[in-house]
Amino acid sequence: MSNNIIVMGGDGFCGWPTALHLSNHGYDVTIVDNLSRRKIDIELEADSLTPIAPMSARLAKWKELTGKTIDFVNIDLAESYARTLHLIEELKPKAIVHFAEQRAAPYSMKSSWHKRYTVNNNLNATNNILAAIVESGQDIHMVHLGTMGVYGYATGIPIPEGYLKVTANDQDGPREFEMLYPPGPGSIYHLTKTQDALFFAYYNKNDDVRITDLHQGIVWGTNTPETEMDESLINRFDYDGDYGTVLNRFLMQSAVGHPLTVHGTGGQTRAFIHIRDSAQCVRLAIENPPAKGERVEIFNQVTETHTVKSLADIIASKTGAEIRYYKNPRNEAVENELRVTYEKFLDLGLDPITLEEGLLDEVMTVAKKYQDRCDHTKIIAQSLWKKDMEVDLTGSETPVT
Amino acid sequence: MSNNIIVMGGDGFCGWPTALHLSNHGYDVTIVDNLSRRKIDIELEADSLTPIAPMSARLAKWKELTGKTIDFVNIDLAESYARTLHLIEELKPKAIVHFAEQRAAPYSMKSSWHKRYTVNNNLNATNNILAAIVESGQDIHMVHLGTMGVYGYATGIPIPEGYLKVTANDQDGPREFEMLYPPGPGSIYHLTKTQDALFFAYYNKNDDVRITDLHQGIVWGTNTPETEMDESLINRFDYDGDYGTVLNRFLMQSAVGHPLTVHGTGGQTRAFIHIRDSAQCVRLAIENPPAKGERVEIFNQVTETHTVKSLADIIASKTGAEIRYYKNPRNEAVENELRVTYEKFLDLGLDPITLEEGLLDEVMTVAKKYQDRCDHTKIIAQSLWKKDMEVDLTGSETPVT
Repeated sequence: MSNNIIVMGGDGFCGWPTALHLSNHGYDVTIVDNLSRRKIDIELEADSLTPIAPMSARLAKWKELTGKTIDFVNIDLAESYARTLHLIEELKPKAIVHFAEQRAAPYSMKSSWHKRYTVNNNLNATNNILAAIVESGQDIHMVHLGTMGVYGYATGIPIPEGYLKVTANDQDGPREFEMLYPPGPGSIYHLTKTQDALFFAYYNKNDDVRITDLHQGIVWGTNTPETEMDESLINRFDYDGDYGTVLNRFLMQSAVGHPLTVHGTGGQTRAFIHIRDSAQCVRLAIENPPAKGERVEIFNQVTETHTVKSLADIIASKTGAEIRYYKNPRNEAVENELRVTYEKFLDLGLDPITLEEGLLDEVMTVAKKYQDRCDHTKIIAQSLWKKDMEVDLTGSETPVT
Repeated sequence: MSNNIIVMGGDGFCGWPTALHLSNHGYDVTIVDNLSRRKIDIELEADSLTPIAPMSARLAKWKELTGKTIDFVNIDLAESYARTLHLIEELKPKAIVHFAEQRAAPYSMKSSWHKRYTVNNNLNATNNILAAIVESGQDIHMVHLGTMGVYGYATGIPIPEGYLKVTANDQDGPREFEMLYPPGPGSIYHLTKTQDALFFAYYNKNDDVRITDLHQGIVWGTNTPETEMDESLINRFDYDGDYGTVLNRFLMQSAVGHPLTVHGTGGQTRAFIHIRDSAQCVRLAIENPPAKGERVEIFNQVTETHTVKSLADIIASKTGAEIRYYKNPRNEAVENELRVTYEKFLDLGLDPITLEEGLLDEVMTVAKKYQDRCDHTKIIAQSLWKKDMEVDLTGSETPVT
């Protein structure tokens, strides 16, 4: 079997460090990307806090430092099916890692255009890759980066790692069966991931495609051992209201002296994982594929859970930052519990970085170092979930319910 | 409130008779269609058994006979968002009926191109209509034609009309909740309808869009009181292996002396409804909308269930037709039970045509009348569900397992 792996979306925040990690572990990596994330930077007039190098400079440096070649092909996966199929037929990869989706919930809610772009891009990309795998006739393992957000936070039923056992009434009485956890997406972006799950179940059942879906928590941190090897390999760090994830936003805010921007009460519980662990999880998933004929494998790619408020408190206590409360631009429950199982990756040997040990390091090595690149006008989240909402630019000292 | 109704996909097999039915019942109807179904006829080199008139001739005749105007706008709903939004803002319809999807399972499985066309067309059309309703700021009821096929036939749990009650374990013990029936789509076409259901749940929850989803059985029959008023109003009748539905195919086969083409053993149980009742159900759904803030309303638009074999037996006994068994081109269970509740439309006053009373009438008035238009080379189903399947052109005298 070939040693090739295609990383679809390998220029993004998760894709880039994963591509380097896989290359460093001996795989022959080809990155496919249409550079959409860099183009969205232009649209949003926002930039990575860290200065990211062009793809060709990244790959040349990687080759220089490690002797390893990573190929890059610019394909719009939602559009260019024939090129995608051709690449798969040529490379015969053992696995395709699929990161090639618009991944920011606030961006997906900015306007009808952004809703439509997210739906069109994400669903067609996923379907094109799966249709191409089937048409190629090859036995390729697809590893997809999903999100904890597919579960939603509504039912209150603890989230298993994989399938939920439920009981329903048959004519002969109660009968137990397993199913995907009932989806409860909180944005158009999350919605597309729940629709992806239906693609996976279908292509797995009809065409026996081997698929692993990674339900990932919110990623924090910036660098991995590979991206730290040289500044031109550095990973993106988003801090703006659309693409910045909550913990990285807090880190940057504390570095530049901005109050920590808590939405609502901060009572939302979320799951987290460090970017270094995320890359390792993808490799572990590749190395532990489901057998042919098995149903879609699901991992909860998560290493700890916290409320947003408790994260703000930790960072405030470590850095002296002030906390400020802003109207929640999302249409979501004010508070939620989150009980989720995450054992499979630990069983496979993952040794996670905890927030407690990694946090200050991030602040000092990344947020502080690049603080002069921060555009303060991009800090406040301005994408709204509903027509009748208003942007809260000023915030208040007390939780907003 | 306006009396306008937009029928998206109003040139198709269900859309056209529904548009006339609504017009006849006093609604101001605008048909939106890109005429894709007629263009697919050209691609497949297949034609409706009945001679269908061009849209302008249909509408002119309708005006002449009834004095009622139906407007027609040619829009590709998956592509032309701005025109869709503009039309909605202009007409301020009380309801939008959404038929505008590629609706043949075999067509959706013909090739990667057909899979991709179906996904792109159906999902973008649904999302565009919903995004436009939200952007318009109007309180418009969306009535969507779904399919019984979203349920699949796998779990064996009886299908409720709406939501399934299940029990799962909370940390405090068993807890009951309601959810969408676990999807089990049997083709790419059916898959898109399960993905539509997630769009509906999301836009209903986030934006309070009022939505009714009609899970329709297999439609049989051709005409309604309105389409019978003149030959230029006649509805399509598809008999080919891609678009012909099982019962209409059998009717036409018996009319032209072709053996009835049963796939596999014929042990597949399916749900059925006559086209006249289908149009009435849509009107009843429009006239009984969910309240603002209510979850998505679901009807099972079905009036009886039969196995494919029992249908073939009925027709054979009435017409003397021979039954012949062909390898099943679908990847599905050889046999299945189907226990489904369908009470809501009966409670609203639907008085259905039974198969027993309507069957021979269809054979004599439509299939026999237009038998000379039948292209015998289009009778055998040739779209295959998996790469390794083969078309069965000859069939056999005994069931194929």
